Amino acid sequence: MKTLTIIFMALFLSCISLWGQNSVTGKNNPAATVIETIIRNTGSQKYPKTVDVIKEGDPQTQVKGIVTSMFATMEVLKAAVEKNCNLIIVHEPLYYNHMDETEQFKNDQVFLEKQRYIKDNKLVIWRFHDYIHSMKPDGIESGMLVKLGWKKYAVNGRLDQFILPETNLKGLLKDLKGKFPDYTFYVIGDPEMKLSRVTLAAGAPGSMYHIRLLEDENTDVVLAGESQQWETYEYIRDAVSQGRKKAVIFLGHIASEEAGMEYCAGWLKTFVKDVPVHFVEAGPSYWAY
Amino acid sequence: MKTLTIIFMALFLSCISLWGQNSVTGKNNPAATVIETIIRNTGSQKYPKTVDVIKEGDPQTQVKGIVTSMFATMEVLKAAVEKNCNLIIVHEPLYYNHMDETEQFKNDQVFLEKQRYIKDNKLVIWRFHDYIHSMKPDGIESGMLVKLGWKKYAVNGRLDQFILPETNLKGLLKDLKGKFPDYTFYVIGDPEMKLSRVTLAAGAPGSMYHIRLLEDENTDVVLAGESQQWETYEYIRDAVSQGRKKAVIFLGHIASEEAGMEYCAGWLKTFVKDVPVHFVEAGPSYWAY
Repeated sequence: MKTLTIIFMALFLSCISLWGQNSVTGKNNPAATVIETIIRNTGSQKYPKTVDVIKEGDPQTQVKGIVTSMFATMEVLKAAVEKNCNLIIVHEPLYYNHMDETEQFKNDQVFLEKQRYIKDNKLVIWRFHDYIHSMKPDGIESGMLVKLGWKKYAVNGRLDQFILPETNLKGLLKDLKGKFPDYTFYVIGDPEMKLSRVTLAAGAPGSMYHIRLLEDENTDVVLAGESQQWETYEYIRDAVSQGRKKAVIFLGHIASEEAGMEYCAGWLKTFVKDVPVHFVEAGPSYWAY
Repeated sequence: MKTLTIIFMALFLSCISLWGQNSVTGKNNPAATVIETIIRNTGSQKYPKTVDVIKEGDPQTQVKGIVTSMFATMEVLKAAVEKNCNLIIVHEPLYYNHMDETEQFKNDQVFLEKQRYIKDNKLVIWRFHDYIHSMKPDGIESGMLVKLGWKKYAVNGRLDQFILPETNLKGLLKDLKGKFPDYTFYVIGDPEMKLSRVTLAAGAPGSMYHIRLLEDENTDVVLAGESQQWETYEYIRDAVSQGRKKAVIFLGHIASEEAGMEYCAGWLKTFVKDVPVHFVEAGPSYWAY
């Protein structure tokens, strides 16, 4: 009996300990602890090489509140400060290149002012890119599914393949414009083309990823983020010229992923307790003329 | 006297020989000879490594006529065949990546149909990228100067820096739309911003090239081709948020360079004699919604 009690006690304690590892409660936990907990909750293996590191700020900063966003733009940083949040979790780089290299900016006034603002306000900026994509299902795609409202059209539970009620390219564009009213899309394809099979290629996965989707007979239209214009753009232009019933809609990089960071805020709230968590929209960087 | 005659004769013959090297006359010269003559006329050193190679076709093909274009799209290839031209000189890749690698396309129907069309019509496709940019002045910029109509505003004879009569961003955009009516530009900046100093960054020279221009107090606006959206786009968004009087207009890669290939056709006619030379517009690959 004593042995059984000891076994139950041990089990109970290990549950407590596991629970302690997988959630974080209350303000004033160090940023490093919150970030470790987030990574653990993705269920991913730890990556030895990743861009998901603290870009600015002291890892021991006590977290008062969290903002998630696509980019830590100046406006997003200011919104975080106004909300009294000091941990900013962003999907994309802070300083204008994938690796956030800053050596080339040491005399750049835009960089210096942004860095000064972050330091003056004691903010911590952490990039959440590789780990959120590693989630099963992909956390960015989970958010995009909600934004697109296409859950009932998802193919075999995949979050990037949809069979819509038959429409044409014009009709699909009208639907998308309703969901992304601030964006002007670049489009290649016949506006009258009938379609139902749409595949999402969020972000910038490279032109060969787009082309493999377009080769697949299960895809009529690729909803892309962005691509270099001498790559996917020219491939689909040739495909259309050859009479193929294919099209690509470039939503823009941000439109194609940003809802994932809104989803992220909701997901964080399930295990980061008693700390304010807000999604702040970065929105489009550009307007169209 | 005899010595003098010999010297004059030698000089005369070397002139003839030089002239023979620097121009080519009549139809039916091999494509390789025409291409060698073009490279020689750029005045550039020969590049040991360059993308300016024959992408498809037999170098010994007898040239009946020449088409210059930005891209050898299916439509451009068809226009060349209709014009009875078999040497197609393009600024950009034939097969959707900078190095024109095709291994990944061996089962791709778009690639196979395009390649078949080129072979069936015995076309030769030559890329003219590195050498036209090496010209002094840059051949692409020479064409863009004509297209923009800004010769009188050029700074110190440079073809990429202009001081325009003071206007605002809206006014500049209206002017550019008149010159590129088929394009929808992506723009970052305050529409009311006053400006006069505009720098052209044709094509895709990389975001650090754009940023160096924007750092320069001699540039109010960069007229860019294209950039990845997490790079130049976010830098200029932050710059504008910080109250800096800067803007970027993304014309699109093609709009930012295509006039260079029109200029190229005119330039070729000065030393490729008695062979038809036509510029064929590729135009925008995309439309905006």
